[in-house]
Parts: sequence; structure tokens; C-alpha cells
Amino acid sequence: MRVRKRKGAEEHLESHPQFVISQPEAMKGHWRELFGNDNPIHIEVGSGKGAFISGMALKHPDINYIAIDMQVSVLSHALDKVLASQAANVRLLLADGSDLRNYFAAQEVDLLYLNFSDPWPKTKHEKRRLTYKTFLETYRYILPQKGEIHFKTDNRSLFEYSLVSFSQYGMLLNKVWLDLHDSDFSDNVMTEYEEKFSKKGQVIYRVEAQFL
Amino acid sequence: MRVRKRKGAEEHLESHPQFVISQPEAMKGHWRELFGNDNPIHIEVGSGKGAFISGMALKHPDINYIAIDMQVSVLSHALDKVLASQAANVRLLLADGSDLRNYFAAQEVDLLYLNFSDPWPKTKHEKRRLTYKTFLETYRYILPQKGEIHFKTDNRSLFEYSLVSFSQYGMLLNKVWLDLHDSDFSDNVMTEYEEKFSKKGQVIYRVEAQFL
Repeated sequence: MRVRKRKGAEEHLESHPQFVISQPEAMKGHWRELFGNDNPIHIEVGSGKGAFISGMALKHPDINYIAIDMQVSVLSHALDKVLASQAANVRLLLADGSDLRNYFAAQEVDLLYLNFSDPWPKTKHEKRRLTYKTFLETYRYILPQKGEIHFKTDNRSLFEYSLVSFSQYGMLLNKVWLDLHDSDFSDNVMTEYEEKFSKKGQVIYRVEAQFL
Repeated sequence: MRVRKRKGAEEHLESHPQFVISQPEAMKGHWRELFGNDNPIHIEVGSGKGAFISGMALKHPDINYIAIDMQVSVLSHALDKVLASQAANVRLLLADGSDLRNYFAAQEVDLLYLNFSDPWPKTKHEKRRLTYKTFLETYRYILPQKGEIHFKTDNRSLFEYSLVSFSQYGMLLNKVWLDLHDSDFSDNVMTEYEEKFSKKGQVIYRVEAQFL
């Protein structure tokens, strides 16, 4: 997600160390200690402005959530959402998603969300797509056996690509939605982007894919 | 495909034994002899009125095609299409698709098409869907190792179901189209149904799935 640069965003993040993790490498293997319980840990890679993660955190108080984004301004907006929600079970991580093994130990994460990831439409940028096989490799490491990725997007090409990428990587598709907002799926929490573009009539795709 | 009962349909089929196979069980293991060459054999299960198979046969003279449908009236329309096309590389088979192992030996078929199959939307009818696992089992038997199913439909629920069914059966998705008519796919031959419903703005889905 591209957003305007926000003045004072860095200071905003620094002033809330109880929610914003400043040294993510140091957290590897210690996330459960940080949360102070043994609840499952769900992460969102590329969390944008945080509507999804704060909505999920309120809806599921027995799950710990971590929102990861690499842009300071974006994450500072997510911090606002988390503060407003008063959810205690969510943390924010300013980090590049390129190798999550730097921040999480093997099997430390229970579920991984990808929402409206950058489609990187040009073939030469395929490797940057968050569902490219090198990313799947890092996800597999931090997830348990049979761990799942829940992915939604309005981008048709990225969704077509991702279904094939999951399958070719040896993952199982457990469920597919080709029009999420016209379906029986009742646990949906919308992202800011989803709210905006579904109103314009854009179809939302969703898949739950599982490692073997 | 449901069509009006056609008067004289049975006689029409019987009067063209060079195209219509009357004793399909007897053909098992002998299809290459029938065609008189070693070209690949592609079959369409549930062929409807034959626009697809006759169009494909003209476009690909080095492939042998077999159209399978269980309804006499439907197949008699397909015969008309085949006769009009003057394609020599297509045969029609009046048969129920429930166990293709009755009509084909192991690995006798090179590629299998499913086009706009009956969606059987009720859960209690799941077993009748042509992408249900028991059908996949019969397809796997008659196809070679790494054999492929090419499936298209405008039915969203059936397509969602089928992607998951292929994947759960252990098949690989090689390519997925979520709007075939707005894509780079250039080899498309439309069925009668496809022609009609895509004009009404219906999205056409397509997948190429492969056995391991």
C-alpha cells in the first residue's frame, strides 16, 4: 500500500513501544513471552493501515495478532487504529517481509494473512509478489506443519497467479471464494482498501491454502 | 445440457456408424485402431451440441477427438455439427460418463475436456458433479501419468468447488483463468452455451489441472 508520507510518523511509533516492536530480530523465538500467554499467533504480512488486524483482534481476543509493514507512515496509521480499538492482543512490526525467518523461529506463527498484496504485474517483478515461491518457503518455515495462508485480493491476475503458485509449491487449496462479498463467508473483516473498492463493484477473491 | 427431445434422433445416430460408436464397451483398448493412426486422443465428457469438439477437430487435424454425451437428442445435434464440419478426426459416443473405464483402457486418452458441466448445486448431489473425486479417479485411470483435465465453466460455485476438488485429489493447477474472454488465451473454441452466456456478460472460468 502506498500512502502519503506522514509527518512525525517515526516519533509516533517510537512513543508507543508497548505496541510497536523496534528490534524485531530480537523477538525471534520470544513472541509468546511478549504476549504473556500461549494463545495462537496470527500475522498479517503487508498490513496497510491496520483496519483488518485491529478488527480481527477485537473479534478474536484469544488470538495474538502481529501486523507487519515496511512503511513507517503506513504503520503509524495502523498504530492509530490499534490505539483506538483498545485491543491488547496486537503488536506492530516495522519490517520488510522478504525474510520472515529473521523475526520468527520455526513454527512460531500459527496462521498467516495476506490481504490485497501489491500485484507487481510485470513478469520481471514476479519475485516480488508475496505469493512467489521464495516467500512461500519462508512462510513454511515459520508456520507449523499443515499451517495455512489466508489470502484475499481484488486483483484477478495476482489471484490467478497465486492459486497456481500455491499449488505448484505443493500446497493444498482448502477453500476458494471467487466473490467473497456474495458468499456464505461470515467472518470477514474488511481492510480499508477492500471497503473502498468493493463499493465500486470490484469482486474480492479469497483462498485458504495449506502446507502439507 | 438439457435439450428438447428430437424426433428421429436415434435413427439419425444409427444411420452414421462411421461417426457414432454404438457399442462403446467393445472399443476399450481399440480407439487407435479405429482412428487408424497414432495421433493423440482427446475426449470431451458431456459434449452437448458439439460446437466445441467439431471446432477443435477442424483446428487440430492431428488430434483425434471423441465427444461423449448420454443424451440421444444432444448427441444427434453434435452429429449435425460434425457432418457439417467435414472433420474426419472426431467420433461420437453415446454413453454415461459415470465410469469411463468401461470404454477406455488405462492411459488410452491423452487429454480430457470438461466444458460447462452440470453444476449440481445442491450439496446432496455433490457426487454427481463431474469434478467429484470418484470421477477424478476414473479420469486418472484413462489418462497418462501427468495427464491433464481442461475445464471451463461460467458457474462460480462449481468452479470454486472444482479447484478445491482437483487440489485435494493431489492434482496440480497449471494455469487458471478467472475471465477467459478477457485474457491472453488464444486457442479458445466456444461451446454453444459459452457463446450465448458470455454475450450476456457472464464471466467464463478456466483451469488446466494435472495429475501427478
